[in-house]
Amino acid sequence: MYSSLFGILNKAIEEQQQLLNHSLPKEMYEPMSYIIGLGGKRVRPLLTLIGCDVFEKNVQTAIPSALAVELFHNFSLIHDDILDKAPLRRGSSTVHEKWTNDIALLSGDGMLVKAFDILSQSSADHLPALLKLFSKTSLEVCEGQQLDMNFETLESVSVDQYIHMITFKTAVLLGCSLQLGAICAGADLKNQQHLYDFGKHVGIAFQILDDVLDVYAVDGKFGKQVGGDILSNKKTFLLLNAFEMANESQSRMLKEALQSNTGDHAHKIEVVTGIYNQLGIKELALQSANNHTDLALNHLNELEAAPTKKDDLKTFALHLLNRDM
Amino acid sequence: MYSSLFGILNKAIEEQQQLLNHSLPKEMYEPMSYIIGLGGKRVRPLLTLIGCDVFEKNVQTAIPSALAVELFHNFSLIHDDILDKAPLRRGSSTVHEKWTNDIALLSGDGMLVKAFDILSQSSADHLPALLKLFSKTSLEVCEGQQLDMNFETLESVSVDQYIHMITFKTAVLLGCSLQLGAICAGADLKNQQHLYDFGKHVGIAFQILDDVLDVYAVDGKFGKQVGGDILSNKKTFLLLNAFEMANESQSRMLKEALQSNTGDHAHKIEVVTGIYNQLGIKELALQSANNHTDLALNHLNELEAAPTKKDDLKTFALHLLNRDM
Repeated sequence: MYSSLFGILNKAIEEQQQLLNHSLPKEMYEPMSYIIGLGGKRVRPLLTLIGCDVFEKNVQTAIPSALAVELFHNFSLIHDDILDKAPLRRGSSTVHEKWTNDIALLSGDGMLVKAFDILSQSSADHLPALLKLFSKTSLEVCEGQQLDMNFETLESVSVDQYIHMITFKTAVLLGCSLQLGAICAGADLKNQQHLYDFGKHVGIAFQILDDVLDVYAVDGKFGKQVGGDILSNKKTFLLLNAFEMANESQSRMLKEALQSNTGDHAHKIEVVTGIYNQLGIKELALQSANNHTDLALNHLNELEAAPTKKDDLKTFALHLLNRDM
Repeated sequence: MYSSLFGILNKAIEEQQQLLNHSLPKEMYEPMSYIIGLGGKRVRPLLTLIGCDVFEKNVQTAIPSALAVELFHNFSLIHDDILDKAPLRRGSSTVHEKWTNDIALLSGDGMLVKAFDILSQSSADHLPALLKLFSKTSLEVCEGQQLDMNFETLESVSVDQYIHMITFKTAVLLGCSLQLGAICAGADLKNQQHLYDFGKHVGIAFQILDDVLDVYAVDGKFGKQVGGDILSNKKTFLLLNAFEMANESQSRMLKEALQSNTGDHAHKIEVVTGIYNQLGIKELALQSANNHTDLALNHLNELEAAPTKKDDLKTFALHLLNRDM
């Protein structure tokens, strides 16, 4: 499914990567080419092409938007990795590790500008709508990243605040990616909005499931250490719900576990997971993810497009969400 | 001159500043409001309004472009100050000093996106041309900043490379600012280009004079310590020309002066300035600045616009260039 679109996308991205690789000054452009070359799943730009294809329009018109989305996403990775002091990205060195923080700052800036530069190559009649959506969403992604940073030092965060944060940090870009494609296809506002909401709710469900998988994944099938979020005291959907539902003694045990510095990682994970299990947090999270998936599918159902195209998109989304547990 | 345009501009900027000041999350938006509130001369957004006004069109249509230019410029200051580890900007703490590097990184990103977001409010018929010019120029400014960083560690830099760097880092944004206004006024490409080239050459002349003033300003009239560039071994127009013109013994003296770590600042400035004087570097630089000013005025001369409007712009540019020496 979508192998033809994926072929078109990869060709366009590789051409762009070659252009970046030969641009000067190389100190600024090489890191852009490097991070794009690391691959990743390229879900966002694929969604842009899908958002055009679902209306049976030629996806070539959506290529500038797809590239803009992919460049923006990679810009955000470069700068987020600086903020997180992360050593690895997609199994390779992060840009600031391979080069320097200064290079990562500046090549990230350049990549963000380049995203808008490529978007400007879109057809003039769609450009105002494309730019308005893309800049609004980009701003929300920055806001989401700031909220995520704020959470690290906040004493208490509500589940609602958490949903707001992941919506901005992750989900809106998925909705935006699809809607950009729909704009390029000349879809009307109502259908654009259905695709946007579909993508947004899939994104929220994906992030909630990501939190579940961090604790409950079959080890080795997830690509990250199981329990990593617990060990780093990350304020996840699970932890925040646990705090909202815990009785006094469970709440005290949770706080003690989070504050413990014994280095006994297995014990910490066991205590926190034990409380999650007492409170039925896993089931609650799966239910919440299912609710957002249902909301997404309702919007897809409302979309005025060929049934086979809608079925393909549904299958693709469910495939994204069904990872091993 | 231009007091009416300046009034319109300041009102628009202050309204924008209020909006930013009330946006959430405040950790991201407060620094934007802060740096805009520090003022500065606001030459760039004023040039955008002038670029529209010179064709006798209502400047309200150019307000989104003017705000975009001012936000972009301030974004570049926030990130450049991180790179330069600068403690002060316009006499106040830099953003990364007042807050943190992380905050400065993220609020800078947000401000860059916000610039494009505001630009998207321009009229749809001009937006493709505005976005194309603005994104191209923004990319060049990033490239110029990277080249400037590269110069710090390069053994030798030619005068041509230096002119290329200041053109990208500073001058193109002045040309772009004017051209954005011209686009909003509906000017044709030929007249847009004349305004762009006028602004670009004024910008180059300004930067060369900046280097001259750092050495030859009447102390206290420039706002920076005289000789600061010499003490920091900065590769200026003066130093690079001196190296290109120096005989063997002068070249050796220059290198020794640059490498000296005696802490005798007055002596270092005296030695380097002495060689500049032997080589007639000041006169050479003034001549080069004059050449670029002449090129700028030639383009202004070619511009098809009302003579009084052109005279005002000429007077304004010469006023910018005529600082005390």
